[in-house]
This record gives sequence, C-alpha cells and structure tokens, in this order.
Amino acid sequence: MPQTDPVDLTRRLIQCPSVTPEEGGALVLLEGLLTEAGFACTRVDRGGVANLFARLGHAGAPRTLGFNGHTDVVPVGNTGDWTVQPFGAEARDGYLWGRGATDMKSGVAAWVAAAIDLAAEIPEDGALIIAITGDEEGDATDGTKALLDWMTEHQERMTACIVGEPTCPNHMGEMMKIGRRGSMTANFTARGIQGHSAYPHRARNPVPALARLMARLDTHVLDEGTEHFDASTLAVTTIDTGNPANNVIPATSRATVNIRFNDAHSSEGLTAWLREEMERIAGETGIEMSMEVKVSGESFITPPGELSALVAAAVKAETGVTPEMSTSGGTSDARFVKDHCPVVEFGLVGKTMHQVDERVEIAQIQQLKRVYTRVIRDYFA
Amino acid sequence: MPQTDPVDLTRRLIQCPSVTPEEGGALVLLEGLLTEAGFACTRVDRGGVANLFARLGHAGAPRTLGFNGHTDVVPVGNTGDWTVQPFGAEARDGYLWGRGATDMKSGVAAWVAAAIDLAAEIPEDGALIIAITGDEEGDATDGTKALLDWMTEHQERMTACIVGEPTCPNHMGEMMKIGRRGSMTANFTARGIQGHSAYPHRARNPVPALARLMARLDTHVLDEGTEHFDASTLAVTTIDTGNPANNVIPATSRATVNIRFNDAHSSEGLTAWLREEMERIAGETGIEMSMEVKVSGESFITPPGELSALVAAAVKAETGVTPEMSTSGGTSDARFVKDHCPVVEFGLVGKTMHQVDERVEIAQIQQLKRVYTRVIRDYFA
Ligand SMILES: [Zn+2]
Ligand SMILES: [Zn+2]
Repeated sequence: MPQTDPVDLTRRLIQCPSVTPEEGGALVLLEGLLTEAGFACTRVDRGGVANLFARLGHAGAPRTLGFNGHTDVVPVGNTGDWTVQPFGAEARDGYLWGRGATDMKSGVAAWVAAAIDLAAEIPEDGALIIAITGDEEGDATDGTKALLDWMTEHQERMTACIVGEPTCPNHMGEMMKIGRRGSMTANFTARGIQGHSAYPHRARNPVPALARLMARLDTHVLDEGTEHFDASTLAVTTIDTGNPANNVIPATSRATVNIRFNDAHSSEGLTAWLREEMERIAGETGIEMSMEVKVSGESFITPPGELSALVAAAVKAETGVTPEMSTSGGTSDARFVKDHCPVVEFGLVGKTMHQVDERVEIAQIQQLKRVYTRVIRDYFA
Repeated sequence: MPQTDPVDLTRRLIQCPSVTPEEGGALVLLEGLLTEAGFACTRVDRGGVANLFARLGHAGAPRTLGFNGHTDVVPVGNTGDWTVQPFGAEARDGYLWGRGATDMKSGVAAWVAAAIDLAAEIPEDGALIIAITGDEEGDATDGTKALLDWMTEHQERMTACIVGEPTCPNHMGEMMKIGRRGSMTANFTARGIQGHSAYPHRARNPVPALARLMARLDTHVLDEGTEHFDASTLAVTTIDTGNPANNVIPATSRATVNIRFNDAHSSEGLTAWLREEMERIAGETGIEMSMEVKVSGESFITPPGELSALVAAAVKAETGVTPEMSTSGGTSDARFVKDHCPVVEFGLVGKTMHQVDERVEIAQIQQLKRVYTRVIRDYFA
C-alpha cells in the first residue's frame, strides 16, 4: 500500500496562496487526490467561498466518521518581516515554514494522508466524510456552515467528527478540546449633555457613569467554573472618549466588554444581565445608555465519552502523553459541527499560528498522521 | 475738557492685529495717547512679549488706583466663517465687530479714555497706574507677571486694582468678580499587562482599575461651597484606551480629571488627596498608576469690602443694576494681581468672546467708560 506523505502534502498546500476567501488551488489539489483515492467529491461553494465535501463509502452509513478543517489562511502581513517566503514552504531546521503551516494545512494534510492510506480498510457499514472549508478565518458564514447545510439537505450525516485545528499549547499531545466557552462582545455608548468643566451641574457627564458601570461589571463573579469548564470571564477591553479639552465635559463616551462564558450561561441570559446593570446605572446617573451585543458563539461541549476516550487513547499510544480534555481557547468551527454529532478537536502545536514565520515541526506532522490513522482504525474496529 | 471717545479707541485697537504674542500696534497706540495725556510710560517687554506700564502721578503715592488689562487676542480661526473682516472693526446694527471687541479691547479703551479725561482731577496724594499686557491669552508667563515683577523691582505699588475683563454673562452690570476658584488638571495613566480577553487571569487589565478610580473620584463631595464661593467641582473629562481588538486586554489606559476649587482647598492638598486615592486603587487592583498634575491657578478672593462696594455703587449708578459679587468662571490675570493689592474685576458682556463674529454693543462701551469714570472719581473722592 503506498504511504501518502503528509509532509509533502503540507508543503504543496502551503504553496497555495489561499488567503481568505481565495481558494488558491488548495481545494482543487485535495479534490484531485481524494477523487483518485475513491472519494466522491462535491464543491459546495457559497457566497464567494470555496468548500469541499468528500465521502468514501455510502451516504448515511451507520458509522460515518467526519473530519472538519480549513485551507484558508490569515494574511501574511508585511512580507519583509518574514525570514522566508510566506508561501515558499521551505524546510529548514526541522520545520516547514510558511503561512498556514500550523493553522491548519498540516492538520488537513495529516488527516487526508491517513484517510487515503486507509481507504481500503473502511468497512461496509462505515464511511469517511472530509469537509474542508475555505472560510474559517473570515466571518465563517459561508464556510463550515455551508457544508453542514448542504449535508443536511442531501441526507449526509456524520456519527462523529474530528476537527483538526492545532490544540496543543506547547508540546505535542498535551491537549485535546471537547468544547469551547462561548464568546460575546457588548459595546456600550453613554450619552450625556456637553458642558464646561467649571459647571458640571449644568452638564451631564457620561464618563464617570460609564466608568461606574465598567467597574461594576468588572467585579461581578459570573461563576466559579463548571464540571468541564473554567470560570466564565469578563474583560473590559476599552473605554474611549476622545475629549482633548480639559475644560469641556464631553457628550458621549464608549466602552467595550468581552465575555467568555461556560455552560452555566447563555448569551441571552448574559445580555439580559448586562442590560439590567446598564439600566440601573443609567437610572442612578441620569445618563442615557445603549448597548450593542455581538455573539460569536454559545458555549458547547461533547461530554467526555466514547469519542474523546478513543482520541485520547490514540494520542497516548502515539505520543506517550495523555491529553488534557480542555474547553479553553477561542472559538472554532466545532461550534457548528456540535449541532450535528459528537465532535472532538485534536491537532498539533499551534504556537506560531497567525504569526510572522509561522512554522510546523516536520516530525509533528508525521506524528499527527499516525494519531489520525489510529483514530480512524479504532473508530471502525 | 476734550471728551476721549472710547468707541473710536476700541475701533482703532481692533484694527491692530495683535494675536498673541504679536503687539500689532496696540500698545504703541496706547503709549502715544497716554504719554500725550501726561502718563509716564515704560515698555516692560519680556520673553518676546510686549507689555506697557503707565503711571500718572508719583510712584508710591498713598492712593494708587491700578488698572490691568490685555490687548492681545485669540486667533480669528477661519476668516471665511466671519460675517466681517476680523480686524476691520466695522460698526453695524449698534455693534462694533471684530476679534477682541469684547475680550478686551473695549474694556481697555473705556478705562484709558476715562483716565485721560480725568487726568487733571487726580489729587496730589493719588496716582493712576495702567498695566497692559500683550500675553493674557497665551501662557501668561511673561505678561501681567512680568509687569508686576518689574513694578516690585521699581517700587511701584498699587493700593487697589480693577481688572477690565468682560464679567457680565448676559446683561450689562449684572456681575462683578471678587475672586476666582482655582483650577487644576490631573492626567492619570494606568499600566497593566497585556493579554488575551479569554484569559484575564494571565493579564492585568488597567481599564477597570482606572474606571474604578474615576467612579470613586467622581462621587466624592469636595465641599458644599464656602462663604463667597460655589462648591468645588471635579469633572472626569475623558478616559481613553484606544484598543480596537475585543480579544485583547490592553496594557495601558489614560484618564483626565479637572478640578475647580474654592478657598477650602489648595492645589497641594488636592494633589495629595488624588495621589492617596490613586494609590489605594493601585494597591487594591495591582495596577501601576501614575499621575501628572498641572495647576492653572489657586483660588483667590478679595473679600467684599471698600473696593467692591465702591465698584458696585458705580455700576448701580450708571446701569441701574446691582452687580452680583461672583467668584465664578475660569481664571484671569487677577490671580497674579491679588498678591499685590485688593483686586476686583468688572467689564461688559462677554457673550461672544473667543468666537467667530465677536462683537461689542457700542452703547455698552460708552456705559463702561461712565462706570470707570465714576470708579476713578469715587476712589479719589
Ligand atoms: Zn484554524
Ligand atoms: Zn480676556
């Protein structure tokens, strides 16, 4: 059986300049390889975004293991800041260098290489689905969502899914993710009445009212953490007024709060709480206040169980490390997948993701392919 | 006796483009007229600023009535926004239009005209001093201060002084000033440790700490007012962070507080209080905080007495209105004069000062000269 080289595939993917929303040749490359290996491929493009759906085996097979990933990458920034060509995929010092090396062309390459090599081993009642999007780094409205919508329409189902984002903070194997906290941002505007600093009673100063609200929100303890989650957190990220004149009381001031919340909360409940606090301070101070909330995602979890145990065992077997089952970090496309089937995230070390000189340890790509190979084998065992 | 026309003199002064620190011909004009009327004139220029000292009578006369004013004006801004030529001194609709019309070339003209006309009436033991600066609107370090320094050096003393700034908010005669509150500005910087919004415990957020300090300062009652002063006030004029990223906890944030304080406080005491509050919050939050204080002036007062009664009576006689003895408003050069002799401020309506289309009611200039005439006569009566 030919061994598909995940390092070479990573290299070829890095050479595709697939900055969101450019396809850059990456999905075309994967479609070719997967088709050759016997996968039925469909491009599920939507809203100017390229997405690739691939299935090996029957639609609706009782055991269908999915994989979700993305080939789009964040911009390279100033090319002059890089030691290498950002899309050169140069191998140097044991690393493969380039934009997308860790996030997450190596993850996609490792899974695709494992899947191609195992194509012949998938049992009759089993199927593999590979759903790769070109819009994870953008606003993600026509990416994994589009793939899942299309799958629902076409009676394509997964019974479990692995997301291949880099999940390890420092060492290979140390962390997998079984959920994520939710994330939301609230922008507050306080409006008063402008006036002269010497006569505050003739003005209404929005600045101290907003300061009071922010100080109050900041000291509130949302929770102490839950069974699988860290405590929810609230960060006042900015307060801005932009009044350069010491002798003027300004008319407006703005502030932003970012909340990361666990399964003890919902964005709806938190929005109601923020509104209540805001209205209390508005009432106490006579300052008009308004709030705009943007929810990036609710919290979600696939509670530790068969799937996470299977992945953890595979990681332990190949790396010698038992991964922590974490719910930390920002959000990922797992937030969409979780509505369809149990989902677990495991990938390699993400240290340099989104940075200049992004690079991946070559040995880790090989190791990741071995982990994924074991996951696929064990799932169908 | 020839009657010196204060309206014509105002007109001629407005035609001098004496934007701080330009002399613009204004002091040269006054020096000529006063010399002709028998005043001994000296230019007391310092640090690139032109100042004029004029005395009628003996130096050190037991009754020496001073007058302090300025001929410099603030910039005109966009000339296109004006209805008239800013230095044209056009008479229209009963007003004389132009930069400096109210602040305070009309005040200087009214006093100088009165003084010239009364020159022959000043008794043997009396003297008039007129101290006009070309730097009141600037940073004022080489203006009235330079004149007073020079006077001290040359044994020139005043036994009382009138400052001719516009003091009436809306109607001629309604207000004189017997003091001013002090003014100071404190700029706070809070420094924490930058980090990711999702992990506030790994960062130190300066924003809520600063918000807490500002909310605390804002609710503190400095005093309830004193015999001659309104309550001291504190205004949080701005809080600024400039962090556009919801997922980032910023490293620094800044805030500004402006305090207007009466004779229950000194800038030194208030600075100590601000520092104490800042250090308390810094200690509670672990956020490093620093503070820069700029004092514009301490509070001062000439308690109601002979001088204010004399001026009030003159105002009432000529306008029919009894002026309020106020300590309101921003600071003025009276803050320097008060260290030398009792000082009272009275002038006409200042509504359009520093604005586009600054203008003075022609009738008010005549009225002001009559008030000043009566003040001079009564002082020596
Ligand atoms: Zn990613
Ligand atoms: Zn002035």
